[in-house]
Amino acid sequence: MENKKGPDAPLFSLSVVLIGAGNLATALGEALFGAGISVLQVYSRTQESAELLAKRLRVPCVTRLEEVNKQADIYMVSLKDDAFVNLVPEITAIRPEALFVHTAGSIPIDIWEGHCRNYGVFYPLQTFRKRREVDIRTTPEYIEADRPETYAVLERLGKELSGKVRRADSAQRAALHLAAVFACNFTNYMYVAADRILGEHHLPFEVLLPLIEETARKVTYLDPVEAQTGPAVRQDTGIMDKHLRLLKNHPDLQELYQLISQGIYTSKL
Amino acid sequence: MENKKGPDAPLFSLSVVLIGAGNLATALGEALFGAGISVLQVYSRTQESAELLAKRLRVPCVTRLEEVNKQADIYMVSLKDDAFVNLVPEITAIRPEALFVHTAGSIPIDIWEGHCRNYGVFYPLQTFRKRREVDIRTTPEYIEADRPETYAVLERLGKELSGKVRRADSAQRAALHLAAVFACNFTNYMYVAADRILGEHHLPFEVLLPLIEETARKVTYLDPVEAQTGPAVRQDTGIMDKHLRLLKNHPDLQELYQLISQGIYTSKL
Repeated sequence: MENKKGPDAPLFSLSVVLIGAGNLATALGEALFGAGISVLQVYSRTQESAELLAKRLRVPCVTRLEEVNKQADIYMVSLKDDAFVNLVPEITAIRPEALFVHTAGSIPIDIWEGHCRNYGVFYPLQTFRKRREVDIRTTPEYIEADRPETYAVLERLGKELSGKVRRADSAQRAALHLAAVFACNFTNYMYVAADRILGEHHLPFEVLLPLIEETARKVTYLDPVEAQTGPAVRQDTGIMDKHLRLLKNHPDLQELYQLISQGIYTSKL
Repeated sequence: MENKKGPDAPLFSLSVVLIGAGNLATALGEALFGAGISVLQVYSRTQESAELLAKRLRVPCVTRLEEVNKQADIYMVSLKDDAFVNLVPEITAIRPEALFVHTAGSIPIDIWEGHCRNYGVFYPLQTFRKRREVDIRTTPEYIEADRPETYAVLERLGKELSGKVRRADSAQRAALHLAAVFACNFTNYMYVAADRILGEHHLPFEVLLPLIEETARKVTYLDPVEAQTGPAVRQDTGIMDKHLRLLKNHPDLQELYQLISQGIYTSKL
């Protein structure tokens, strides 16, 4: 492609409209803003979310799809999966010749097929919250596209945001998302369970932070199976029985304790 | 207490014998060694473990309790729980007037009662591996003792090793240990499960490391319940059904997925 810009022009000069204003849209919007990429507008069904993100990015916002700016090069969609699937026809009708990208781990690329000419997926493998800045430069961005030309555009966009742009097809992305549910959402639930146990004994959660940090650090240099410690892997049934008795008022955690201990034991065989 | 030492004498001048040479004994031994505390000897039933740790600490080792040095002020016991409980009479017979300390989260202090005159518990809340140096200065050390004089000795020992010495009775320590199983051992099993899922799609575990790091970091400033994200907390049943189908060849992980998702949903109610 011929480059008509001068040497000081931004590397990525396409303009973006954000469809959605949740945790992920917020993180992406701020990353785009930080990289100097032109965000034209924010759409969200709820006024409050739309305004919050639009204010941060210093752009206008709308709450109806009919009002979305029709001049953008890229429409980047980060909506809750169920809502998104139903809105594909309306979203692509905004400007059918534009590039449409969704950011969901578990939605295949072919959701766009037959609705628009240029499409792809841009999936950051990270956990986001609106009020927390995450370093998107260390976040792997997984890209999929309808054809090489679209891939090149998304790869360039990805490189503006992150040092870690990778290719994943829809099956791989679904596996990444499922693995992320275990490594992030389910891990966090282990913290929730630990917090409940400590709370009963008036102990603060923060006493676990050095342990949590070390547990996360261990798997940076050991396979998770090799990093496994604790009574279940040693089959220390004395301790495990004590723990189950301690959980007598929490049948849900008892069941979880048994199921995970069994899994730990089996994974070592 | 009168201080007969000169200003350059070490603050803590009592000598220690280590009974056990596993992950925890190794971490403690190295911390004692690093703090300039006199370790006289290492005991382990297995020659290889005994030698490995003794060599690191530059002290002799023995593999039979009858051969343990009878001159130590403190005998610090880090054995597998079942083995330890049976050996209490033999261990305390080494030198009944010494101070006996065990390091197990789930064994109450009264295991020592009737066997020796001075006893306590010294429990570091951390995960250890022999080949990995953990910063024990950031590890909380939980102390319990038979009486204030013993507590003072253990507190002083603890402060030589860590900036975070705390008091916990046996019930609190059992809760700490159980909470640690969830926050460390079970969390690691979530990493194991994620690794299995990725492996099937020929994706390396390391792609999850930024996510794992952020998940651990989030709970340094948010309550775990507040930090919860993912399809279960949003009750995004479309994604959850897809995930269960992806796990069709792993009935164990399917069951775990359902149980944890239910727990996440309930904990938000």
